[in-house]
Amino acid sequence: MRAEILSIGTEILLGHITDTNAPYLARHLAEMGLDLFYVSQVGDNRGRVTETLRRAWERAEVIVTTGGLGPTEDDVTREAISDLIGEPPTVDAANLEQLRAFFSQRGIAMPERNVKQAWTTPSTTTLPNPRGTAPGWFVRRDGHVIIAMPGVPREMERMWEEEAMPRLMAVAGQTLVTRILRVIGLGESTVEERVSDLIHMTNPTLATYAKIDAVDLRISAKAATRAEAEAMLLPVEALARQRMTDPDGTNYVFGEDKITLAAVIGQHLLRLHWQLAALESCTGGLFASMLTDAPGSSAYFRGGVVTYATDLKEAQGVPPEIIERDGVISDATALAMAQAARDRLQAQVGVGITGVAGPDTQDGKPVGEIHIAVITPVGQRVLTAQIGNLERGEVKRRAVRSALTLLWQTLSTTMAAEA
Amino acid sequence: MRAEILSIGTEILLGHITDTNAPYLARHLAEMGLDLFYVSQVGDNRGRVTETLRRAWERAEVIVTTGGLGPTEDDVTREAISDLIGEPPTVDAANLEQLRAFFSQRGIAMPERNVKQAWTTPSTTTLPNPRGTAPGWFVRRDGHVIIAMPGVPREMERMWEEEAMPRLMAVAGQTLVTRILRVIGLGESTVEERVSDLIHMTNPTLATYAKIDAVDLRISAKAATRAEAEAMLLPVEALARQRMTDPDGTNYVFGEDKITLAAVIGQHLLRLHWQLAALESCTGGLFASMLTDAPGSSAYFRGGVVTYATDLKEAQGVPPEIIERDGVISDATALAMAQAARDRLQAQVGVGITGVAGPDTQDGKPVGEIHIAVITPVGQRVLTAQIGNLERGEVKRRAVRSALTLLWQTLSTTMAAEA
Repeated sequence: MRAEILSIGTEILLGHITDTNAPYLARHLAEMGLDLFYVSQVGDNRGRVTETLRRAWERAEVIVTTGGLGPTEDDVTREAISDLIGEPPTVDAANLEQLRAFFSQRGIAMPERNVKQAWTTPSTTTLPNPRGTAPGWFVRRDGHVIIAMPGVPREMERMWEEEAMPRLMAVAGQTLVTRILRVIGLGESTVEERVSDLIHMTNPTLATYAKIDAVDLRISAKAATRAEAEAMLLPVEALARQRMTDPDGTNYVFGEDKITLAAVIGQHLLRLHWQLAALESCTGGLFASMLTDAPGSSAYFRGGVVTYATDLKEAQGVPPEIIERDGVISDATALAMAQAARDRLQAQVGVGITGVAGPDTQDGKPVGEIHIAVITPVGQRVLTAQIGNLERGEVKRRAVRSALTLLWQTLSTTMAAEA
Repeated sequence: MRAEILSIGTEILLGHITDTNAPYLARHLAEMGLDLFYVSQVGDNRGRVTETLRRAWERAEVIVTTGGLGPTEDDVTREAISDLIGEPPTVDAANLEQLRAFFSQRGIAMPERNVKQAWTTPSTTTLPNPRGTAPGWFVRRDGHVIIAMPGVPREMERMWEEEAMPRLMAVAGQTLVTRILRVIGLGESTVEERVSDLIHMTNPTLATYAKIDAVDLRISAKAATRAEAEAMLLPVEALARQRMTDPDGTNYVFGEDKITLAAVIGQHLLRLHWQLAALESCTGGLFASMLTDAPGSSAYFRGGVVTYATDLKEAQGVPPEIIERDGVISDATALAMAQAARDRLQAQVGVGITGVAGPDTQDGKPVGEIHIAVITPVGQRVLTAQIGNLERGEVKRRAVRSALTLLWQTLSTTMAAEA
């Protein structure tokens, strides 16, 4: 089946917002095995939306739209779909009641213009939207499916995952099951290479996506029932996990689905009854910030020190003779920083990060040279990374990713040894 | 004139990358006064690219494409444009020489397949690309302009600003001048409200864009010459600056064009010969990280401490009796943290940030309650903000923005008083 995506909203055409709904939907459509050949953005104009819908109707069986479902005159998606399928909209009593309930729960009277959000047509099924006022439309007509969803990403994503996607699969008599393996410590091209023979499968499908904190390996299987789809997915997931493990047992999958690396590190620390502290210089606080993005991190994160000035490193407990001997940008200094973090901030686990964020070299060391140390009650690890002469923010981000990876590997090894 | 944007690349249709080129170009086209009614994304398929170009040709005078200019068989933008205008491409000797020079500078032989990147046609002017191998095309034919640029944003943006946009303006016999006023301390809707009577002007144009660290007010004027455009822009800029100033003289414009708030704060600190240190808790290191994103920040940023655990605040010099009396989440604690930062980290300027990042309340204070203090050699300021029960990362980002704003205001006032 061919699919087409249409994003509706004048604010997109003015460049006020970036359309992130289209790539989100594109990923999901690919997983479902649908062919996506065209994506379009069009403004809040009934004629132009209808024209674009008509063209999509001619070249695809499935049309997914986002935006234009608000209550104002500018919101014309419902009108355009009605024009296209030749079904004048009518007010649905149940929809209207739900809409009034949404407003009265918030203690406000529903403005009359919102009535159009309760519209339906004979070929339309309403898709509930607990996160906003605009319900979606699921239209089946003449062998085509049109799915209309709100433009607000958090409303759209829930509606897609909970309502639209399962219905669309049901039309094809199928269920889709997806599993994401989150990979760290391998570059995207290495991950791709390791699964290159699996990447052209059509069911299950397997694809890689580079995210900020990891590479995602998404595996999706479709079948008549959920149980069948899961049965198809399992061996491919097992194979993919095997490919993400080195012969010596080193595993690069830190978690599944939507969990973050910082959250997994937090879970490990809680299980080990350890608390963490950090001394960082070139990453300027970003390491601490990433760790504290995880809710509940105060249970295991003691704190951190950003020692930008060299004399502050010494004031925080890094022995001057080490800096004198090996330099600020060195493994020895990173280790001394990790030890100082443990001592001064009273934590079982200490992390030290030193390096050159750029744009200038420092101490004769090139931009992008990073030294990271992790010390725990049972051992220590040091990592030297050469990130390269990248933009300052990018050096910081990659250095933090390396530090989180080293920390996760250290904690995982400890847990494996204890198990 | 009507314009249309076409983004080309199968990786867009698979959801592997988000098309950020289209919103970038949309903003610029709006400033130039062009009407953008349609944006499309299409894969690396010669037939589909040609079909989409043909449709754009029918409904717009200006077509801007990105992507599909690489050396592989999959890169078909040049072929599709040639098909559309009926001009078979030929190898341009000067282009080829430049291309070979690009490779030989990097010490590698040019692969033969790259020859197609030296193609041209009779209606085509080559747009140089110092950041990559793919030059762009500027095609003028039958009252239409087609601009083809690479998909890599940093190559595209330079080519647009330096080559394509000036040529496009010249076609219309015009020059475009843009000035961005960067606004902090006012929400986007307030900024919009204050310039609401100016927002519908057509030349100069004025538009607001919410960015991560500020609200941008973009003013663009077009005229036959640069001097004329600047003369038109100046009074509107002056008026906009006036609107961004309160009757008591409080100014909300911290800088112009592409400068960041962190960089402006750095400039102020350098001018005042002051260094900065921070103690932060709920923002978890993000404040220090934002400050150290500015190149050269080691000249004025001493360091910071993330005191996540309450006893660490005390260990870093926050008097226990203040925490005892006013609580951890209070103005008094924020002030004591700022003072401790100055004392312990030996800086003239101290910043203290305490608050509740969520998802749980703390000390009976709601999620989103933030206290920020700035102490300098000539005074101090405290700010209490109620950010609201937002997602944890969002609370952190807004708290940091408030802290940077307070810091900038404090330094600006000092500089104004000294001047």
